[in-house]
Amino acid sequence: MFTRSLLIKLTLLISVQFFVDVNMHAQAKKPAYAIVIHGGAGVITRQNLSPEREKMYILALDSAVSIGEKILANGGTSLEAVEKTIRFMEDSPLFNAGRGAVFTNEGKNELDASIMMGSGEMAGSVAGLTNVKNPISAAIAVMTKTSHVMLAGKGAEKFCAEAGLEIVDPSYFYTEARYNALQKALKDESDNPDKKRGTVGCVALDQFGHIVAGTSTGGMTNKKFGRVGDAPIIGAGTYANDASCGVSCTGHGEFFIRHTVARNVAAMMEYAGKSCQEAASYIIHEELKKVKGEGGLIALDKDGNVVMEFNSEGMYRAYAKPGEKVIKIFND
Amino acid sequence: MFTRSLLIKLTLLISVQFFVDVNMHAQAKKPAYAIVIHGGAGVITRQNLSPEREKMYILALDSAVSIGEKILANGGTSLEAVEKTIRFMEDSPLFNAGRGAVFTNEGKNELDASIMMGSGEMAGSVAGLTNVKNPISAAIAVMTKTSHVMLAGKGAEKFCAEAGLEIVDPSYFYTEARYNALQKALKDESDNPDKKRGTVGCVALDQFGHIVAGTSTGGMTNKKFGRVGDAPIIGAGTYANDASCGVSCTGHGEFFIRHTVARNVAAMMEYAGKSCQEAASYIIHEELKKVKGEGGLIALDKDGNVVMEFNSEGMYRAYAKPGEKVIKIFND
Repeated sequence: MFTRSLLIKLTLLISVQFFVDVNMHAQAKKPAYAIVIHGGAGVITRQNLSPEREKMYILALDSAVSIGEKILANGGTSLEAVEKTIRFMEDSPLFNAGRGAVFTNEGKNELDASIMMGSGEMAGSVAGLTNVKNPISAAIAVMTKTSHVMLAGKGAEKFCAEAGLEIVDPSYFYTEARYNALQKALKDESDNPDKKRGTVGCVALDQFGHIVAGTSTGGMTNKKFGRVGDAPIIGAGTYANDASCGVSCTGHGEFFIRHTVARNVAAMMEYAGKSCQEAASYIIHEELKKVKGEGGLIALDKDGNVVMEFNSEGMYRAYAKPGEKVIKIFND
Repeated sequence: MFTRSLLIKLTLLISVQFFVDVNMHAQAKKPAYAIVIHGGAGVITRQNLSPEREKMYILALDSAVSIGEKILANGGTSLEAVEKTIRFMEDSPLFNAGRGAVFTNEGKNELDASIMMGSGEMAGSVAGLTNVKNPISAAIAVMTKTSHVMLAGKGAEKFCAEAGLEIVDPSYFYTEARYNALQKALKDESDNPDKKRGTVGCVALDQFGHIVAGTSTGGMTNKKFGRVGDAPIIGAGTYANDASCGVSCTGHGEFFIRHTVARNVAAMMEYAGKSCQEAASYIIHEELKKVKGEGGLIALDKDGNVVMEFNSEGMYRAYAKPGEKVIKIFND
């Protein structure tokens, strides 16, 4: 009996090895991994971004994408890469997420984030956090430690504290630039809210073939009444499916919710046979542009093809694959 | 000048009349209107529903669907039909929405609702309301009176008060049966949360060819931490597009969010050429059943075809078209 059991085990081992070999061979032309990030889309032009600020953003985008790239290159998971990359951007006051988030009408910072894994369709989301240092980690905790997808407000904060997430005083999120932006918005009746947005996002494909997408934001300057944008909405701001793609959006959130943008990219690939690039281009430049829905998205398909599309004047963005790194801001 | 102006007006009038005639002729085979409702899906069997309760539900479903039907038959809009129908179900203590909503872990009632119009892709949503009598009307107010789609928590309540919606004392939502259900859930560790859900929803197609879908819920008995289900999520619990269909879902919300169920029905029609029935059947009986995602949905396509699918043991449901009314509870 012992020999027979051993034989079965050996046969299984050889079968698995064979499967792995065949599988690796079939994927030979794909990059081993890929990562793409955004730091918000909007009125970002050479005219309104000084060379000094431009350098700061380039440096921050480079640092962020490199964090995730290193994890992926070392065989880490796309979930870890997305979390660590977004945490860096949340901690940077340059981006409208975490520290540096924009202010609500009441002079508070309210943070939203979401995450989705392409395998097993697991997802997590938080909305309206005021004291959790890294909302993306809160979204991941909702996904991994509860049976729920979305938690909001005071209840979500209570969960975060119990789950051991880092809690900070709301003043941690304060930055002078964002506070001044609120003061200007409150004064200026003709203020265009379109200019006061931003979000960070990351999509990663790891060496196991798994895609993860995440998004984190402070929302809209001067937002009122507990407004929730697309960032914490699975299917709107964030979506991932290993069979098609992972997507993270940024822009005028209301349009991204109504058009279920992130899910729509995947649906056009899944059901209409479009490529990720074709689907994204159509949605951003045709569908959303028609209704003046400003913004953009980043995406990765299952083969590691990178998409970075936007219909605004600029989008902070970067991607990395083995032997390739691109960092861009303007529309060129 | 007067005669020329009159001539232009007359020409315009005739053109409009001609357009209306042609349009009505083209739609001759469609029903003039259609409406479908649900009052929640779950463990609803003849064994656990007494004949007296069954009669009460049949009567309530009949009254609800008749309210919307009358509006549509008289040439009213699908938006009005959905609002009035859902308000009736919110006001009835029989359903888990508005009065009669289930209790959270903290012994409160927290209400969510959403609405979407198939024309112009307008949408509105509220989450975590504790003192607004009719959440569906709050969702409509968000859609029609703000530039936003989703408002949550205290901020949403502030908006509702300013918008003139009827505010009630939180005790209004209390019903003994739901409170006892919470006490039982709190005591019973082995309590299956799947049995403590429910939602109401309505999809209507009016004589103008416009589809509107709406959903309203008290969520899950014993819910914690500001949990948000699929009901207020556009694309998950509610979706509408005049070009394809309108959908309202009910069931274990987390699965409906991860699978973007309402949007997915429309996407399969739009991109894969499926009928509304085919898309709904696949998603409910294949995709969701595989992951044990219990629940169901109601839908109407642009031709007024009615869909009522569920993978649970029962779903309170009804529909009406000219000369046709069906009311059902069990799986037969």
